[in-house]
Amino acid sequence: MIGDSAQDDDEALVRAANRAFYDAFERRDLDAMSDVWERSERVLCVHPGWKPLRGWGPVSGSFFALFQGPSQLQFILTDEQVETAGSMAWVSVDENILGDQTGAMVSAVNVFRREEDGPWRMVCHHGSVVTVPSETEED
Amino acid sequence: MIGDSAQDDDEALVRAANRAFYDAFERRDLDAMSDVWERSERVLCVHPGWKPLRGWGPVSGSFFALFQGPSQLQFILTDEQVETAGSMAWVSVDENILGDQTGAMVSAVNVFRREEDGPWRMVCHHGSVVTVPSETEED
Repeated sequence: MIGDSAQDDDEALVRAANRAFYDAFERRDLDAMSDVWERSERVLCVHPGWKPLRGWGPVSGSFFALFQGPSQLQFILTDEQVETAGSMAWVSVDENILGDQTGAMVSAVNVFRREEDGPWRMVCHHGSVVTVPSETEED
Repeated sequence: MIGDSAQDDDEALVRAANRAFYDAFERRDLDAMSDVWERSERVLCVHPGWKPLRGWGPVSGSFFALFQGPSQLQFILTDEQVETAGSMAWVSVDENILGDQTGAMVSAVNVFRREEDGPWRMVCHHGSVVTVPSETEED
């Protein structure tokens, strides 16, 4: 079925775009990070514990500042789940973060939008530190 | 222009759907909460500090549990911003939460999808407590 195949392709492309975000983060590569995002006023980024940053100016500024910081981060991504709906997609993923000091588990939701005949670009990133043990852990 | 007017209508409908979420939360009304959400396997909910809950079963279960809890919450919503893109929309809003014990400021991103010829339904809710003073506060 054509529809299913197109959806599989989109899922793979969204998965790749999501990985590109974390690759750029690990490599502290602002050019690569700029390629991941839709560079518009409507993008939205909530770093763990932060207030929302809106628009590519403040969002890129935050990555510039984070990339200058002392702690180089490594992300072990687990439990990644991609949902696509037309030209939009959302990904939930657990970021198991290894830093110079301590680690943390961050729960992230990333939203992507496909530009017409173009690539999938991130429009929202929201990460929050997991502090509450899961009540629904069954296995 | 027809496009702009349709977009204005969508923004108003998304804003209303977003308010309905917080109204249902304040009133601890699980029926109303069920009306807000797309009741599907792909919905996603991250309560502050929690791991992601995926699918309407776990998501509705979490609201059932929260509504049984001792603390009745009141939400003062500030800095609400709605973005629409076709049949998807995302809202960022600061939840200033007043509870029986203490208050908190939670930064939330809510994602909605419009069903064909139908209402806007929530597909993602992600809230996280704001702990870091904003560096971009200018006024």
